[in-house]
Amino acid sequence: MVLTSKNNPLIRETIALQDKKGRKRLGLFLVEGVKMTRECLKSGLEVERVFVAESYEDKDGFLSAIQDKTVLVSDDVFARISDEKTPQGVLCRVKIPQTPLQSPTGACLVLDGVADPGNIGAIIRTANAAGYKEIYLTRDCVDAYSPKSVRASMSGVFFTTLYQADREDILSVLQGTSVIVADMRGENLFTFQAPKQFALVIGNEANGVSETFKKAATHTVKIPMESTQESLNAAVSAGILMYNLKKFS
Amino acid sequence: MVLTSKNNPLIRETIALQDKKGRKRLGLFLVEGVKMTRECLKSGLEVERVFVAESYEDKDGFLSAIQDKTVLVSDDVFARISDEKTPQGVLCRVKIPQTPLQSPTGACLVLDGVADPGNIGAIIRTANAAGYKEIYLTRDCVDAYSPKSVRASMSGVFFTTLYQADREDILSVLQGTSVIVADMRGENLFTFQAPKQFALVIGNEANGVSETFKKAATHTVKIPMESTQESLNAAVSAGILMYNLKKFS
Repeated sequence: MVLTSKNNPLIRETIALQDKKGRKRLGLFLVEGVKMTRECLKSGLEVERVFVAESYEDKDGFLSAIQDKTVLVSDDVFARISDEKTPQGVLCRVKIPQTPLQSPTGACLVLDGVADPGNIGAIIRTANAAGYKEIYLTRDCVDAYSPKSVRASMSGVFFTTLYQADREDILSVLQGTSVIVADMRGENLFTFQAPKQFALVIGNEANGVSETFKKAATHTVKIPMESTQESLNAAVSAGILMYNLKKFS
Repeated sequence: MVLTSKNNPLIRETIALQDKKGRKRLGLFLVEGVKMTRECLKSGLEVERVFVAESYEDKDGFLSAIQDKTVLVSDDVFARISDEKTPQGVLCRVKIPQTPLQSPTGACLVLDGVADPGNIGAIIRTANAAGYKEIYLTRDCVDAYSPKSVRASMSGVFFTTLYQADREDILSVLQGTSVIVADMRGENLFTFQAPKQFALVIGNEANGVSETFKKAATHTVKIPMESTQESLNAAVSAGILMYNLKKFS
């Protein structure tokens, strides 16, 4: 059977997942594309349903293993649930993992009011690559489960643990952990000796790190810069910090 | 006098600068916002004209020093020449510097087919911060003087020297210079000993570095990554490479 109506309740529910409100209500988020769906299945996250466009050609038999979850839809309906300009024809609904807030087990990241979906996705992508497996997000961060953020994270959201909580609660699980904040008056990142376990705090694009985390900082580091440039793109500076605080040599 | 017509030849010419074709024809690009205009004037680039919206309040007397270049326009006209959602009311036309292709004087950057305006801007911003003052762009790079790229560069385009040329010509001015390319089979970036002078090549977002520059590479380095993430955002990886190849300690 092929679903052809945009008014079908399942389709309407799926369209609602494009917005934060819908995701919160249903506890699901959207993952688009064959490669991303594959990675998502691999990660162990619970893929609840896979929507496939009628015109999609399953050349490598990818869909046969997940037939019980598959919903065939017309290309028109697919275009409506898709967030892509040129949809590939595969999109799935995934359960948002609900992990109770807990202390980090290694070097971790705090996202303190990061506002741009592309930035938050790129930061999670780098965090996953650099082995920052636990990411604490303050409640004023943009939603990391938006289609744009998920896409920018390139499967990073599947393989890291995301905790969203109030600043005070994040601080309480970080007790005993060194808190590192970037600031232009800090120590040179490239000579700084980072402790083995720490939480790196990445602030808002325009306003930087909040007063709460500034006060909680045990170390302050700076990325050295030429005088004609006063700051870096948020995802770029987060990447430089993440890679240089961990020892990769 | 206040210009109120979008059909005024000067306004039509300025609108044309939003596109690459217009910029090429007129040899000018657009810089928007008070802060960016100030930085641009400071950089020594030739600011040809400054458009100011009628409702703009010149609280700190910024405009008095550049009165001879100022063109007052109605808010309607300003909205048409502006590339911002919420225009600040100041926008200038700047001469695209025409520097003849020459060999680098220090560590430099080659942008090899970078396709996204936001990425190219963010990369130039990082290059300026990290002291890569000479940037060679292959002809298939997206235009670094587009409004989006200029904005993402946060004045980086004013303070670096951008050369656009054919790959072969870039290679000929790089003769005798070490060429470093990132590749997953390369040496670990964090143990690699970079030569004092080198050209770092940043490839296209989807296809990486071109065959031409792969063949010309004298060194290959990799950013180590966890197995669940196979790549980083182009601007992020460029930032990690730039900062870790230069010695900042």
